[in-house]
Amino acid sequence: MRNLIKSGALLLSLVLSLLLCSIVGQAAELPLVKKQRFELATFTTQSGTTLKQVQVGWEAYGQLNADKSNVILITHYFSGTSHAAGRYQATDAAPGYWDAIIGPGKAIDTNQFYVISVDTLANANVKDPQVITTGPASINPATGKRYGLSFPVVTITDFVEVQKALLDSLGIHKLHAVVGASMGSFQAIEWAQRYPARVQRLVPVIGTAYIDAYSAIKLERWAYPIKMDPHWQQGDYYDKPQQPTAGLAMALAWITLDALNPAGFNQKYPDLRADKAAHLDIRASFSALDQLLAVATQRASLQDANHLLYLVRASQLWRAGMGDNWQQAIKNIKAPVLWLPAAGDLLLTPQMAQQSQQALSADGTRSTANQLSLIPGQMGHLDGLFNIQAIAPELKAFLQQPL
Amino acid sequence: MRNLIKSGALLLSLVLSLLLCSIVGQAAELPLVKKQRFELATFTTQSGTTLKQVQVGWEAYGQLNADKSNVILITHYFSGTSHAAGRYQATDAAPGYWDAIIGPGKAIDTNQFYVISVDTLANANVKDPQVITTGPASINPATGKRYGLSFPVVTITDFVEVQKALLDSLGIHKLHAVVGASMGSFQAIEWAQRYPARVQRLVPVIGTAYIDAYSAIKLERWAYPIKMDPHWQQGDYYDKPQQPTAGLAMALAWITLDALNPAGFNQKYPDLRADKAAHLDIRASFSALDQLLAVATQRASLQDANHLLYLVRASQLWRAGMGDNWQQAIKNIKAPVLWLPAAGDLLLTPQMAQQSQQALSADGTRSTANQLSLIPGQMGHLDGLFNIQAIAPELKAFLQQPL
Repeated sequence: MRNLIKSGALLLSLVLSLLLCSIVGQAAELPLVKKQRFELATFTTQSGTTLKQVQVGWEAYGQLNADKSNVILITHYFSGTSHAAGRYQATDAAPGYWDAIIGPGKAIDTNQFYVISVDTLANANVKDPQVITTGPASINPATGKRYGLSFPVVTITDFVEVQKALLDSLGIHKLHAVVGASMGSFQAIEWAQRYPARVQRLVPVIGTAYIDAYSAIKLERWAYPIKMDPHWQQGDYYDKPQQPTAGLAMALAWITLDALNPAGFNQKYPDLRADKAAHLDIRASFSALDQLLAVATQRASLQDANHLLYLVRASQLWRAGMGDNWQQAIKNIKAPVLWLPAAGDLLLTPQMAQQSQQALSADGTRSTANQLSLIPGQMGHLDGLFNIQAIAPELKAFLQQPL
Repeated sequence: MRNLIKSGALLLSLVLSLLLCSIVGQAAELPLVKKQRFELATFTTQSGTTLKQVQVGWEAYGQLNADKSNVILITHYFSGTSHAAGRYQATDAAPGYWDAIIGPGKAIDTNQFYVISVDTLANANVKDPQVITTGPASINPATGKRYGLSFPVVTITDFVEVQKALLDSLGIHKLHAVVGASMGSFQAIEWAQRYPARVQRLVPVIGTAYIDAYSAIKLERWAYPIKMDPHWQQGDYYDKPQQPTAGLAMALAWITLDALNPAGFNQKYPDLRADKAAHLDIRASFSALDQLLAVATQRASLQDANHLLYLVRASQLWRAGMGDNWQQAIKNIKAPVLWLPAAGDLLLTPQMAQQSQQALSADGTRSTANQLSLIPGQMGHLDGLFNIQAIAPELKAFLQQPL
């Protein structure tokens, strides 16, 4: 009898747990995510080079509906990958970077939308087993050797064209929205201006329609530590005993520095008072830099120095339409737009988003939305990634608006 | 008779010219400036090293009055020298950096004040024949060789102490005001907190009472190109055939980049549209960077790499009082203060000046002025140097106010 009661209680608690799991799961958790591979037999870059066997990874969340009209494309940021949400394994330490807004019931609701995300060409995290990309670290099928710097310069437009080829292969010809942060905003904007009939809504997060000379030279400073690393060897290091790891790590440290703002940085890293050795030797470092570099060195283990240089160049060359007049090109965009700069962003500033927004409405003929809201926060550019939930209701409403 | 008339006319025109010269001269032009040399037989740094035969250059504008009560000290910025105003030769291409506000009838009126300015220790422009400084490039009298990195770390306090020794030697014990831009503001603040009875007015221009971890790491990025230059050789390059000139030039380029803001940079340097090669090779540069580097390389010819590293370190370590609590130390300041940050400054931001101002008034006991005004402009940090005339009337009024 006592056992029977115990069994009954056990059963009840099991049923309750399952019920709870299912409710919570439906409201918050994606099923495990699977990385998929897309291969193009040939791909011709904007610069005119034809590459063979171009591969990229992609993943998706939610269900594609019958008429394939419920697709939202997420384009990833500079240091990011296609892993925008969910987990590959239940034991993964963290979910994809925008898990706060992508999932069942969330702002980008996977109960409603089929959300798809694609690794860029020359993705920085080429050594991450979950990343599939083609870039200078890839084997050139024609030679059997790594491309190195013989890989062509690739552009934001090239990233978009690879994504388009994937979507075409899946029979997807309309996008309910394209949403991307930072370098992902460049791709999202280029999608909307290049294929205005396909893109129904556009959300550039911490984004801009152009990179100016000032920003391009700031980006060049990220490239500098790699180019100065004696082991970089003009990009021909793959078969060498020494790798440009130190330069790569310093590049990543500068990227983090530029992506934070003073408040965020000072909150995250130790202050200077403990750094007594620095008062006695100009070579002595600061613990804030040591910590910044330690994290950067760890991240560098999944990255490739040349890939980072190619992403720097793709970003430096970014302007809507990739021609000489981005202000004109941006007017091709027909989709309603929601600009979401981060209030404290010193890298791609709210002013750049405002300039982009103004250029889009400059001729006064637009009848669709061209809104801008600031993401609040203390982390500068990074608020576009890690404080994105702060504008989730507004994003959700924008995506739900009928055309 | 004709000759007599001609002579008379000539005489008249000569008298008129002289009169005009004297009026104009009194209103706008300083007499030619002479660099002077000050030597200390011994000087003990804050870090406890005693240096012998420490020399610095100085210059002055205006006349010292009988009771030596009309002295204004100008403390110079990172890349600057004691040449704050006037010309050494009538043929000089440009006057000292603050000539717009220092001179007869100007905001810092040399008809009224004796204005004095001193080269810092480890001044960056050690190869400028008009600069006299002691630093790692100097000959160590004990060895007959250059100090290199055996030169001790020097601090803002050390700069102040050398200035104080000079003023003591001149019998000057009160300062009507100390006025300094950027790194000069650090010295000015340290003067006022360390010698509150001597400093009667304080004007920190594009200044701050502290450097936080974020700013210190940004400054470390200036040091990085030098430390990475293979010819730097841990500072021991003076007798070597190769010099770390490339690293020094890149350091100066990054300094200019950080001292400008986007509007100023994009106005001054070419945009990216002409840079066609950059689309074909990730090694191809941008004309904006080429121009930035060309100017930097020219400036580097007067500078020393180690000196720049020592100034970076002095700036990184700056906090009022040089202890663990700058907020407490700053309260030693008794002088009325006029903070003059530049509105568009991304290097030493208006927020840093505001934080400093607030710390000074934090205990609510101050009865003297603690004002702040923004210098307008498009050039970021550099507006504190080259648009200083925009706040000249306010500066003049502040300096004229009785205590």
